[in-house]
Amino acid sequence: MKKIEEYVKSIPDFPEKGIIFRDVTSVLQDADGLHLAIDEMQKFLEGVDFDVIAGTESRGFIFGVPIAYNLHKAFVPVRKKGKLPRETVSAEYELEYGKAEIEMHKDAIQPGQKVVLVDDLIATGGTIEAAARLVEELGGEVVKIIFLMELEGLKGREKLKGYDVESVIHYEGK
Amino acid sequence: MKKIEEYVKSIPDFPEKGIIFRDVTSVLQDADGLHLAIDEMQKFLEGVDFDVIAGTESRGFIFGVPIAYNLHKAFVPVRKKGKLPRETVSAEYELEYGKAEIEMHKDAIQPGQKVVLVDDLIATGGTIEAAARLVEELGGEVVKIIFLMELEGLKGREKLKGYDVESVIHYEGK
Repeated sequence: MKKIEEYVKSIPDFPEKGIIFRDVTSVLQDADGLHLAIDEMQKFLEGVDFDVIAGTESRGFIFGVPIAYNLHKAFVPVRKKGKLPRETVSAEYELEYGKAEIEMHKDAIQPGQKVVLVDDLIATGGTIEAAARLVEELGGEVVKIIFLMELEGLKGREKLKGYDVESVIHYEGK
Repeated sequence: MKKIEEYVKSIPDFPEKGIIFRDVTSVLQDADGLHLAIDEMQKFLEGVDFDVIAGTESRGFIFGVPIAYNLHKAFVPVRKKGKLPRETVSAEYELEYGKAEIEMHKDAIQPGQKVVLVDDLIATGGTIEAAARLVEELGGEVVKIIFLMELEGLKGREKLKGYDVESVIHYEGK
């Protein structure tokens, strides 16, 4: 059986020179790769008590929803500004140049709910740290943060100090 | 047991006056609603022979991936221009003002593969019709198109004539 790492295609110099892009679509477009990726992420939730999975637009949706379905939990999308139709809370995070903003519906998390954050990849960790702030602003507790891939060279884990962070695949570089 | 329709919140005048926005996030943020929505969509695939599910960014990811997982199929994301890292094919579609473009990886579909297209909602049908063209350009065959919700007043089905189209929830209006 192939290992999960073997399904990931790496594209040098995308989206810009010097970056090696780890392409999650190459995992998904193989039925065995897709199944394995979700199963491996889901393993981190064995024995974990939680209510809701929140996933960040848009690749967090890809992994968050099947895990929510399998474990019969709710799913909350964390979206880019302006896309959610009801009352929202929003948080800013830093980009390489400038800032961006993400939003969550105000009624998406009830006070006291235990929340798992899911995304495909952790780079600098800015987006997911902002998502964690939104969960906490609504009175939720972030009990775990799960990624398929982690670029260790970008030290995203340092930004998530105090959280329980797990990744299936670890790359040393950026 | 609640019916799937009862989980959908309707927001008048979003994103602009005169539009009733059918909010899929309200279905997802209830564990039972999420489960039911995916099960109801998946029912349309009973006895259907196919290889790949393709979902359009970003709410097509929400429903496409769990169905792909459950039926052990591949998933192909159809994304907005510039987001896919490898060689792509692209198709234009009409917006209310102007045009937009979606892309699929060139190796995402193999000639002769049977493809199911999935999205949360059909309005005018422009995006999904463009996605179907991409599948066919790559030599695939669209065997079914599945939506959670259909706005019948916008006549998206007419744009998809010749395809086998199914929706779980039907709204008469726009």
